[in-house]
Amino acid sequence: MNEEKPDWSSDLGDMPPEEFREYAHEAVNWVADFLAEVDDLPVFPSTKPGEIRRKIPAAPPSAPESMDALLNDFRSVIIPGMNHWNHPSFFGYFSVSASGPGIIGELLASALNVNAMVWRSAPAASELEEVATDWLRQLLNLPAAFEGVINDTASSSTMYALAAARERAWPDAHQNGLFGMAPGRVYASQQAHSSIEKGVLAVGLGQRGYRTISTDDEFAMRPDALGAAIVEDLDAGIKPCAIVATLGTTSTAALDPVAEIASIADHYGIWLHIDAAYGGPVAMLPESHSWFNGWERADSIVVNPHKWLFTPIDCSVLYCRRPEILKRAFSIVPEYLQSSEVSESRSLMDFGISLGRRFRALKLWFVIRYFGKDGLIARIRNHLRIASLLGKAIGDEDQWEVMAPVDLGLVTFRSTRGETPEEQNRINHEILNAVNDSGRAFLTHTVLNELVVLRLAIGNIKTTEEHVMKTWILLKDIAEGFSEGSRASRGS
Amino acid sequence: MNEEKPDWSSDLGDMPPEEFREYAHEAVNWVADFLAEVDDLPVFPSTKPGEIRRKIPAAPPSAPESMDALLNDFRSVIIPGMNHWNHPSFFGYFSVSASGPGIIGELLASALNVNAMVWRSAPAASELEEVATDWLRQLLNLPAAFEGVINDTASSSTMYALAAARERAWPDAHQNGLFGMAPGRVYASQQAHSSIEKGVLAVGLGQRGYRTISTDDEFAMRPDALGAAIVEDLDAGIKPCAIVATLGTTSTAALDPVAEIASIADHYGIWLHIDAAYGGPVAMLPESHSWFNGWERADSIVVNPHKWLFTPIDCSVLYCRRPEILKRAFSIVPEYLQSSEVSESRSLMDFGISLGRRFRALKLWFVIRYFGKDGLIARIRNHLRIASLLGKAIGDEDQWEVMAPVDLGLVTFRSTRGETPEEQNRINHEILNAVNDSGRAFLTHTVLNELVVLRLAIGNIKTTEEHVMKTWILLKDIAEGFSEGSRASRGS
Repeated sequence: MNEEKPDWSSDLGDMPPEEFREYAHEAVNWVADFLAEVDDLPVFPSTKPGEIRRKIPAAPPSAPESMDALLNDFRSVIIPGMNHWNHPSFFGYFSVSASGPGIIGELLASALNVNAMVWRSAPAASELEEVATDWLRQLLNLPAAFEGVINDTASSSTMYALAAARERAWPDAHQNGLFGMAPGRVYASQQAHSSIEKGVLAVGLGQRGYRTISTDDEFAMRPDALGAAIVEDLDAGIKPCAIVATLGTTSTAALDPVAEIASIADHYGIWLHIDAAYGGPVAMLPESHSWFNGWERADSIVVNPHKWLFTPIDCSVLYCRRPEILKRAFSIVPEYLQSSEVSESRSLMDFGISLGRRFRALKLWFVIRYFGKDGLIARIRNHLRIASLLGKAIGDEDQWEVMAPVDLGLVTFRSTRGETPEEQNRINHEILNAVNDSGRAFLTHTVLNELVVLRLAIGNIKTTEEHVMKTWILLKDIAEGFSEGSRASRGS
Repeated sequence: MNEEKPDWSSDLGDMPPEEFREYAHEAVNWVADFLAEVDDLPVFPSTKPGEIRRKIPAAPPSAPESMDALLNDFRSVIIPGMNHWNHPSFFGYFSVSASGPGIIGELLASALNVNAMVWRSAPAASELEEVATDWLRQLLNLPAAFEGVINDTASSSTMYALAAARERAWPDAHQNGLFGMAPGRVYASQQAHSSIEKGVLAVGLGQRGYRTISTDDEFAMRPDALGAAIVEDLDAGIKPCAIVATLGTTSTAALDPVAEIASIADHYGIWLHIDAAYGGPVAMLPESHSWFNGWERADSIVVNPHKWLFTPIDCSVLYCRRPEILKRAFSIVPEYLQSSEVSESRSLMDFGISLGRRFRALKLWFVIRYFGKDGLIARIRNHLRIASLLGKAIGDEDQWEVMAPVDLGLVTFRSTRGETPEEQNRINHEILNAVNDSGRAFLTHTVLNELVVLRLAIGNIKTTEEHVMKTWILLKDIAEGFSEGSRASRGS
């Protein structure tokens, strides 16, 4: 090496460690304050599309900027444009939690920045992923035959499961593609999540490769309709590829009858995938086991700890009872990823598309240990209790109705104000907009039998009975105000 | 509400904010120490498969555990089993960086825990994703027609690009699946990444749907061979679906001639996807523009800021010049995700499979601003300089040879000790194992023309000329030691 070389390293490295220490502590203080005070922030911001973008320069800076400038902009530009998913009155979509131990796990994992694609690339991360997913399997009371792997989201997990189902249904397609094959279908209820149809499209089956099955008056899949659809398709030369049953649908948290569906899948030899992305954690509760009876006969199951298990986004666990088929659907190991340990340990990259695999197991391990099995169960049980209370309160009220059974943490309901269904729908949309505009709670909606229905999903770790009941009072006040206003305007 | 209700909330919430503050500060101190002292840690651990798992209880705890216990185990069980990707002497695979501003960005994003699927679900995160990917587009000198979206990894980005190519090649397959279609093919060089073949499998084209094109003596795709393959396939009734060109292959960082390949894609009307996951950031350097000439004619391009742009894993940007086709391949918007802003702003979930979308834009925004365009360019230029120096040093040494042009940050080389290719391969494997076992550097290997070749990838933000040259001396010493040992054993 040339002794007279310029000191390239002096200003070409990372942020100096002491500067990192200073600003990371500042960031932690911000997060700790945020977690303590988030309750006082508006859940949904008063921002319009494009407003935030306009506050940011259109071009990147040439010169470096200070962390002070970055953190200032984070506080003054980004935070006012946030929909606060980590707020205890966030009840939209499915409510999620970045719990304290989960955030700390993410912080450590991001600094390590390892890639758990094969054992050798990240030994501890690979082994902890096996341990943490096996711990969760035990918590869920699933048999040991289910091997877990962590993906980013349930959409990916489900697509991988469908790829495995395709591998089993058309073994020759691995070599030849689907081109010469008899067409086939994936079945799911009319209430199943859009990710299933997206997955069907992704793996090449087309929209005709997806057949929805009608639901009963509780929005759960009708096994008789499923059986009839399969028979009809078989008669027409269409190959059944997979059945996707849902435990906790997105619209109403409906629970498909998995035991009956599993029997149909067994009978016809069809891959059964269970979308328990949302509902899965409830399998930890002894009093709720009956809903999950039969899910242990599935070929694959997805459960998302980042939904209702207090783990920061993203962390979706795909369990597979036929990992050899899942692996066969994807596994291609080129020379530069060969290492002698391949035979001694699972290469997690073989069970899906993503080669880059963050160290997601750490936060899941932290969350399970910090709260413990008992603490996790107590929190979920409390959410179920609050949801049930809210369901009863709404059911007791005139001019409101509950639209689906309140089994899990989701309450679906609507105001029955208005003369016609159209007017009722308009009023419910207005109630939704008003509650969200208030910043005091955030809800989303769905449509059931052409009626606009409000969804209030309880699942954030900081949510208490008080948060939910205050929101219920707010909803009633808003609806009452509309009635007053409407009476006033009629009277004028 | 019942005033006499038990105080459920008291022990059912999250970690108390002050406890979070205490342990998150402790975690920050650990990270700051780690970043300051990682140079002194062994890069690769002395652990065997199963060792870490055996140190962890087989079953999850029932009772909560303390953060002290968790952090102790993190330090004593997990860290000793780490392959330290954030070490300046980590030269395996492609070397990556969790830079200070990137880690701070991840910390803040994990606490916010938003899901940027549609504008309404996370206004600021959705808009910042557009801004940050557009900033990066400008840094890469790509035209404004390219719209960016952040995915987890290049494997996903490439699969989504192939789904878009399939949508264009077989428009009817969206409805009918690939079942009745004429078979088709994706083309990539023999040196292309395994994720491309995985993507081809995922979208249903089968292994026959993937055709590799021979490479020249610099391991770059031969356009003449590509043209011939397309003509041959067209004559045989096989539909060309996509061409994937690589800027920075995994084995040798070869640069496919994208301008010539783009002309072929244009001529035949074939989707051109460019895998610049690794090499992309070099497009920021004015002196390197010629390698990228023509990439602006691609239909889609993937560039991974989590590889060579100092952003923690995961952050892969898919640029698409035909976003309407990418969107058509996946877009299904059910009622419960409908909102009035859909028409006013892009719904990022429409451009891929994953519905759950972390706030990855924040760390990318922090990294670009903290280092600035000039700082990013200077760091990458310095990596290129060091790689070039190492290439020259190896080329000047007897009994060593450089195996491919050192254009980017990767040096591929081998020891020529040994009488036969087999013995040479064995010796290079032994050198690799010895350097990795030393804990002083971590390298991986590839195979080129049946020869085992060592790969030294320079890309970590803390890597200096000294780290690289020390590793080169270590490699020479190890090889020399083998020769001495072998002479001694022959002499005895």
